[in-house]
Amino acid sequence: MKKVKIKSPGTVANLVCGFDILGLALNEPSDIMELSLLDEPKVIIHNRDNYNLPTEAEKNVAGVVLLSVMEKAGKHIGFEITIEKHIKPGSGIGSSAASAAGAAVAANHLLGNIFSIDEVVQFAMNGEKLASGVKHADNIAPCILGGVSLIRAIHPLDIISIPSPDLFVTVIHPQIEVRTSDARQILKQQVLLKDAIRQWGNIAGLVTGFMKNDFDLIGRSLEDVIIEPVRSILIPGFDEVKRKCKEAGALGGGISGSGPSVFMLSKDESTAKGVELVMKDVYNRIGIEYNTYVTTINKKGVEIL
Amino acid sequence: MKKVKIKSPGTVANLVCGFDILGLALNEPSDIMELSLLDEPKVIIHNRDNYNLPTEAEKNVAGVVLLSVMEKAGKHIGFEITIEKHIKPGSGIGSSAASAAGAAVAANHLLGNIFSIDEVVQFAMNGEKLASGVKHADNIAPCILGGVSLIRAIHPLDIISIPSPDLFVTVIHPQIEVRTSDARQILKQQVLLKDAIRQWGNIAGLVTGFMKNDFDLIGRSLEDVIIEPVRSILIPGFDEVKRKCKEAGALGGGISGSGPSVFMLSKDESTAKGVELVMKDVYNRIGIEYNTYVTTINKKGVEIL
Repeated sequence: MKKVKIKSPGTVANLVCGFDILGLALNEPSDIMELSLLDEPKVIIHNRDNYNLPTEAEKNVAGVVLLSVMEKAGKHIGFEITIEKHIKPGSGIGSSAASAAGAAVAANHLLGNIFSIDEVVQFAMNGEKLASGVKHADNIAPCILGGVSLIRAIHPLDIISIPSPDLFVTVIHPQIEVRTSDARQILKQQVLLKDAIRQWGNIAGLVTGFMKNDFDLIGRSLEDVIIEPVRSILIPGFDEVKRKCKEAGALGGGISGSGPSVFMLSKDESTAKGVELVMKDVYNRIGIEYNTYVTTINKKGVEIL
Repeated sequence: MKKVKIKSPGTVANLVCGFDILGLALNEPSDIMELSLLDEPKVIIHNRDNYNLPTEAEKNVAGVVLLSVMEKAGKHIGFEITIEKHIKPGSGIGSSAASAAGAAVAANHLLGNIFSIDEVVQFAMNGEKLASGVKHADNIAPCILGGVSLIRAIHPLDIISIPSPDLFVTVIHPQIEVRTSDARQILKQQVLLKDAIRQWGNIAGLVTGFMKNDFDLIGRSLEDVIIEPVRSILIPGFDEVKRKCKEAGALGGGISGSGPSVFMLSKDESTAKGVELVMKDVYNRIGIEYNTYVTTINKKGVEIL
């Protein structure tokens, strides 16, 4: 029986000013999956974790991705998948994307890589659609490709890899629930032109900073005048965490994806660890449980083990 | 008497998707200016062209810039300036910026470069304020620095030079009047979030394309879903010019600044010249007089001769 084992990383979407167009992959946490090719058209799912995720293919993120691969492949095949999830669902660090992207890459591998990267991204986006109601690629693309990804456009899909600097990433996941669909619904459908201009200045600055390895420019550009002022209301302690992390030396950061996780970028590991302490302090005082990660940018994306 | 002669280049602001934040300098056309230092606090202006520009310092773009330099320098000095304008006022290729930036750089040179680049840009922005009512730097910055400039923010001023590819630029200036202030007033003050997202994807793509020297990405990113659909109404033949230039091989392009000039980027000189013919054809048929330029990106900015 053809079989593959893969590691699929967590991701930070949006990167503060790049709502829906930027994302980066993390070296921690990541999910482990094992996929086998079956000779009958069915999908069998085993969850090896405590998250009570559905095992019916149509209701499971990895499941719908595998169904879409089967449909496109047009052959008499099926898949059996075992998922060991370490990225908590609803954390805002790309848990659904890791399932979706991992399943898509693994399935393509078992089929002899007959599909292009763009097609693999398209398969994986079906999983995002199930999870959040919207086909978006700002977690999927960096999860598959590693590093920093720019999704210039969705129709037609246009993904560009951006050279990523060797930065440290601190993530805190306060254990509160923020549903991606809610975080999307509270956004205003119209924005002021002057705010949009400020935002696109920052996006251009951030991309230039990444490519020039200019840490100060990255820090200055990590500013969001459109999404963060609205979404941060859903995250207790956000303003305080952000202010204190920057005082502790972080270049900057903000909400990871649609939250509730908050991420910060730092130049070196000791700063990133100091930032972690600051984050913990705030949530200890507020009295909200959390997980934290101090990690680096994952340059490989989904990995065949 | 201390004296300096400079050449100040025309510029293309906005670069389609980068409204108010991007601009590039042209090798043609450019203005020539001669500036002398006086030992009494006055500004004498001589215009060596047929544009009937004012000679009272307070009403002249270069004049107000020199007045602001005198005020900041705080010394008993004045300037005499002779301006030989080749960039037609109101053309949309940075005529006022060339006067303002040229005067600011020349004055700083005569004073022993006591002011920083940011201060020189600030002086020059006073000229833009007089010309268009708004302090903007998307012509000023590339005029002074050469190449492609990103104005990440105006408050506080944050200008970043972006490595610029060796592209050819074709410009046509149809001889119609589009006032910068009118072109600004017709813009909607609110934009759809989904359009803003599309726009910032393109901006990130354009900047990445410039830095990676990726001509196809530059071409795909030269798309403006916010400003161009409104402003292009003021420019007869715009849609036809754009479509036919792209058919003739141009990577893309659009309105230069607030118009009426239209610019196109091309990979090589022969394509840029073919694009010029296409542009001329359209305006010959419509019956509007024009000037055209086939040139390259100016990497030096204002030059001391």
